[in-house]
Amino acid sequence: MSIPTTSSGVFSPVLTPFAADYTPHVPRYVAHCRSLLEQDVGLAIFGTNSEANSLSMAEKRGLLDALLESGVPGERLMPGTGACAVPESIEMTRHAVRSGCMGVLMLPPFYYKGVSDEGLLRYFSQVIEGVDDDRLRVYLYHIPPVTQVGISHALIERLLERYPGVVAGLKDSGGDWDNTRSLIQAFQPEGFQVFAGTETVLLDTLQAGGAGCITATANVNPAEIMRLFRSWRSPDARRQQEHINRTRAAFQAFPMIPAMKAAMAWRTGIPEWATVRPPLVELPEELVRQLRSNLEKLEEAARLA
Amino acid sequence: MSIPTTSSGVFSPVLTPFAADYTPHVPRYVAHCRSLLEQDVGLAIFGTNSEANSLSMAEKRGLLDALLESGVPGERLMPGTGACAVPESIEMTRHAVRSGCMGVLMLPPFYYKGVSDEGLLRYFSQVIEGVDDDRLRVYLYHIPPVTQVGISHALIERLLERYPGVVAGLKDSGGDWDNTRSLIQAFQPEGFQVFAGTETVLLDTLQAGGAGCITATANVNPAEIMRLFRSWRSPDARRQQEHINRTRAAFQAFPMIPAMKAAMAWRTGIPEWATVRPPLVELPEELVRQLRSNLEKLEEAARLA
Repeated sequence: MSIPTTSSGVFSPVLTPFAADYTPHVPRYVAHCRSLLEQDVGLAIFGTNSEANSLSMAEKRGLLDALLESGVPGERLMPGTGACAVPESIEMTRHAVRSGCMGVLMLPPFYYKGVSDEGLLRYFSQVIEGVDDDRLRVYLYHIPPVTQVGISHALIERLLERYPGVVAGLKDSGGDWDNTRSLIQAFQPEGFQVFAGTETVLLDTLQAGGAGCITATANVNPAEIMRLFRSWRSPDARRQQEHINRTRAAFQAFPMIPAMKAAMAWRTGIPEWATVRPPLVELPEELVRQLRSNLEKLEEAARLA
Repeated sequence: MSIPTTSSGVFSPVLTPFAADYTPHVPRYVAHCRSLLEQDVGLAIFGTNSEANSLSMAEKRGLLDALLESGVPGERLMPGTGACAVPESIEMTRHAVRSGCMGVLMLPPFYYKGVSDEGLLRYFSQVIEGVDDDRLRVYLYHIPPVTQVGISHALIERLLERYPGVVAGLKDSGGDWDNTRSLIQAFQPEGFQVFAGTETVLLDTLQAGGAGCITATANVNPAEIMRLFRSWRSPDARRQQEHINRTRAAFQAFPMIPAMKAAMAWRTGIPEWATVRPPLVELPEELVRQLRSNLEKLEEAARLA
């Protein structure tokens, strides 16, 4: 397994498999992470698509420890550690840093709405100073469609001024390519790594000089996404991107997390993979059949092309 | 101190005082809770205005235990125990029930948006069945302006059918009186207690047959709100309500939590009371002066009236 030491590349917010009793299924989790690493996909465990906020702190610590014990290298791990409460974010972040993780992906506090940049600056500052470890690398997580609380350019500037080298990059899941591009232009030259939040703009991101992407669909389509990442300067890159986008669209036509877990279930032959924690619900059987048929048609079309 | 045994009345989402290092200040917290109880205001600790989601689980447990050890009766406590993760909600709820709290105020999981009633039903069901204690009384917390995830009438019906007696009521912080009124009409006759989320509709709520209110401003204006609760059938009730509303409006002209904490600071002579945790920020000194002057004018006008 080749292990890039740079933080650029493709990361996956790793899906979290649950047993029938809704507890995390550790062996399946480790197996899925290892299969992603074999494709050179980095592990952004505890992201939105990992149902991270539906897991307790203790469960997250247990899963991270299990990965490290199984031999997954910390250099390929970017766990999500943001929480609404500063002390909990400090605790998870400190554990990640001391475990050798290459960085952490940090949500802003997401309970209160309409908060100020000053309030968010204080939040990130208290976490960074509370962790107090030179090895800490923070990747900011901008996902306003879910959090309703975004990371502005002005906030990034203030954070970079205060914590250069520690504030290391951002994942942009805002769904607005213009924002991603302007983040790359403004901050990537200073070494701040900008990751798109979806592989549908992976080629655009790399052409603009961005770091790569951190994307849910890397759970279920890692080979094609990694192929584009490796060969984005090749003449057929745009065609690759278009095919990848059709696969993404097939999943996105349904609630994404249940749809990806349904695909994991039929591909592994383990029906329990489909289990999601509330407030999410599994994809109904009829929609699973529709998703599966749509994906098969895409594969068939690709074979014939 | 008179201790009503019914769950109707006026409750306050108790403000959480922090020391200069942002840790909860336990003696000040106990003193504030006791002063509210002396006014017959119930303690809805760990609400939105308590900055509950900015506190860790361990901090919340510590504060609840400190109240009980100081002699605060569990029958006057309705802690907020809802969390995004089912296991954490079970843990806090179980601790509250075993500590003798009269009920818990339960947020829906608030990270994912656009979730279904079925998903929320499963969330509340897993928590209730996980706690598995006959003494449990759940008050649902409807506050879509903050959570973006609401509690529909249809969901309440399904929960009441599944857990009669356990699902005991609701706090409506939706800001829509029509919804509060229709909840009272639909569910209060079955013994489901509907609390308004603001004292500005306290008289309307009581006239409609509702249970009372759970309101932030009870932290800073308990006497007048309790006076209305006790004398709502008196001829001057509407006049009382109007005066209470003017006080509420004075606070609401500013960010509420920092404004109420600023008032606590000048009234107690303890400047640290103004401290809020990120992502909130304290009210600037100029706005504190403005708030104080507005409140003094209201008091003067009331004296002259």
